Amino acid sequence: MASQASKQPALRAPPGLEGVIVADTMISKIDGIGGKLIYRGYNVQDLPGKASFEAVAYLLWTGHMPNEEELLIFKRNLKRHRKISEKLVMFLKEAVPKSAEPFVVLRTAVSYLQMVRSKENPRDDPVLENGTALGAQFPTILAYFHRIRKNKEIVEPNPDLDHAANYLYMLSGKEPSEENAKALDSYLILLADHGMNASTFSARVTISTLTDLYSAIVAAIGTLKGPLHGGAPSQVWEMLESIGEEELVETWLLDRLARNERIMGFGHRIYRTEDPRSKVLKGIASKISDPKTFALANTVEEVARRILQQRHPERPLDTNVEFYSSLVLNAVGIPTDLFTPTFACSRVFGWIAQILEQLENNRIFRPTTEYVGPPNLSL
Amino acid sequence: MASQASKQPALRAPPGLEGVIVADTMISKIDGIGGKLIYRGYNVQDLPGKASFEAVAYLLWTGHMPNEEELLIFKRNLKRHRKISEKLVMFLKEAVPKSAEPFVVLRTAVSYLQMVRSKENPRDDPVLENGTALGAQFPTILAYFHRIRKNKEIVEPNPDLDHAANYLYMLSGKEPSEENAKALDSYLILLADHGMNASTFSARVTISTLTDLYSAIVAAIGTLKGPLHGGAPSQVWEMLESIGEEELVETWLLDRLARNERIMGFGHRIYRTEDPRSKVLKGIASKISDPKTFALANTVEEVARRILQQRHPERPLDTNVEFYSSLVLNAVGIPTDLFTPTFACSRVFGWIAQILEQLENNRIFRPTTEYVGPPNLSL
Repeated sequence: MASQASKQPALRAPPGLEGVIVADTMISKIDGIGGKLIYRGYNVQDLPGKASFEAVAYLLWTGHMPNEEELLIFKRNLKRHRKISEKLVMFLKEAVPKSAEPFVVLRTAVSYLQMVRSKENPRDDPVLENGTALGAQFPTILAYFHRIRKNKEIVEPNPDLDHAANYLYMLSGKEPSEENAKALDSYLILLADHGMNASTFSARVTISTLTDLYSAIVAAIGTLKGPLHGGAPSQVWEMLESIGEEELVETWLLDRLARNERIMGFGHRIYRTEDPRSKVLKGIASKISDPKTFALANTVEEVARRILQQRHPERPLDTNVEFYSSLVLNAVGIPTDLFTPTFACSRVFGWIAQILEQLENNRIFRPTTEYVGPPNLSL
Repeated sequence: MASQASKQPALRAPPGLEGVIVADTMISKIDGIGGKLIYRGYNVQDLPGKASFEAVAYLLWTGHMPNEEELLIFKRNLKRHRKISEKLVMFLKEAVPKSAEPFVVLRTAVSYLQMVRSKENPRDDPVLENGTALGAQFPTILAYFHRIRKNKEIVEPNPDLDHAANYLYMLSGKEPSEENAKALDSYLILLADHGMNASTFSARVTISTLTDLYSAIVAAIGTLKGPLHGGAPSQVWEMLESIGEEELVETWLLDRLARNERIMGFGHRIYRTEDPRSKVLKGIASKISDPKTFALANTVEEVARRILQQRHPERPLDTNVEFYSSLVLNAVGIPTDLFTPTFACSRVFGWIAQILEQLENNRIFRPTTEYVGPPNLSL
């Protein structure tokens, strides 16, 4: 018996709520068997190159692709918010140890922002207004911290550049090539939303008490940080670096499996076939990665699939989104420990879309538990 | 059809996962019909006065009441961790605006702590070690911020005092009366855990990606902050202040109901009878509250029950835990805007117990959604 007074009998959910529908959504659809990901009706594979990341963010938030004017206004709003409060810059310079984990810096900076945000031009809808500011400021926070820890001057946002290009510019101090800017723009599009993943769920559980947007985004950042969720792309990169040479691939992988260790970047809980985002990212990596690295990754993919298929014919063993993400992020110049925080720069737009949807038809998340502890005790 | 590849057919959960069992637990049991709350076999009503808050925290974490030596060691560990990093003190003094919401300060300080915590004496289990430090430091963070915003010298923790007494001491600079210390100790015991409430659920969802303890606690703080969860005790107090006089109670309440506004402090989603914590808190308030305030609260309780019973005979309309909490917290000297953060000082021990339990048998929380958005669109 569940320990709760309710009208219906208690329902036992599978572990991790796997397969349990917790909401209707108009935002994204994952077709795990067909290998498709849909944003508001659009197949994500079709978006990179045809729509900008800003247009896709607008689509996720509002439900429709922006027309030219809507896109112009949305981009202008994002640009207007890119600069972060002077207090936050001081915090990054003086209070944050240079050795801090970038993800912890991002989580803390977002939490701190709520105390020191500028209040200019607040819209009627504080979630949309604060969401625009947060989405705009994630790259600034990360790039500033990265420059500061490297003892370099911070590079202020450049209003001539779009979201992806400006992030690369603030990191390196140089205007990125069009190819690199486009590659990162595509990456941001592909990672922006993915159904009720753990960080999105965490954001929705948090906002369901009608707390503020910052609390929900901070919860989501902390959740994405976990190695079972967003923490793997840098591990893929470290694996490639550790293998080093094409001819060592098979030995390295077999050795790893002999020690019962996981091979990073393969398999996904939801897709039973190739992750649709992976295919696009592989195409991009083939163009912008250093050819030797791309060839190495390709060989790892081939050999790992062959070995894993022999051992676990029942498991889906295609590369997942993290595998070629790592090549793309490295090629455009993102430092390894900013891989997952850069994932957050994309997903924050999905979180905000999902928070807005949760608030439209909110009910506090308050499941129940079955008590299996000791019976009556007394002191 | 659920948009996910899974072996079983998808299961549709009720809104907010109400009545859905998401875990087995050995920590606490809520008997909503019988009006009981059990911690690890012990009825909470029996604990205040017989066990200290520290003993109850130990019980929640380990599953058994500490013997004398265990309690001594646990108290010593908590005391050892009370002082916060000099960097955090500087942050509170220089980076935090005096007008900041205490809850936002607490959330940010905890997030920041992960970068600047001291690494001395780490135990084998980092969750237990960091948890002890966090549990010890919540009161220090709040008391320091409170003193700083009032332009008063901060008061360092006093190792001669127990957890509750030391919090009051750091807030006021004076050793509290034994009665007040005991009252706060009882409050902390009563609020320490409460099944799978929203903030606890948020902590468990967050830690389920195997992220760190700080991320999970930060998520829980942000969730507790919402007015549908921990945000009400200060509103009860504001209601009592706004009514002011016993003879105005009925008019005030009727006027409020005529404007279709809620009366704070009545009813609970789970208890169909009196909240067991409420009864104990009322007893405490009767001893330590200013008699005029207690009489006013009593009249509000009586009149509100009478009016609400006439209007909604089907609803449970007893006072909830927030009603008499507000009297107790005010009587021991907690400022109104520290009511909910003080709730967090208690609940953080429950969150940590629940995080430890989640990690024992973890599975990532990754439910699913039903896509009801537009069908195939193309650019």
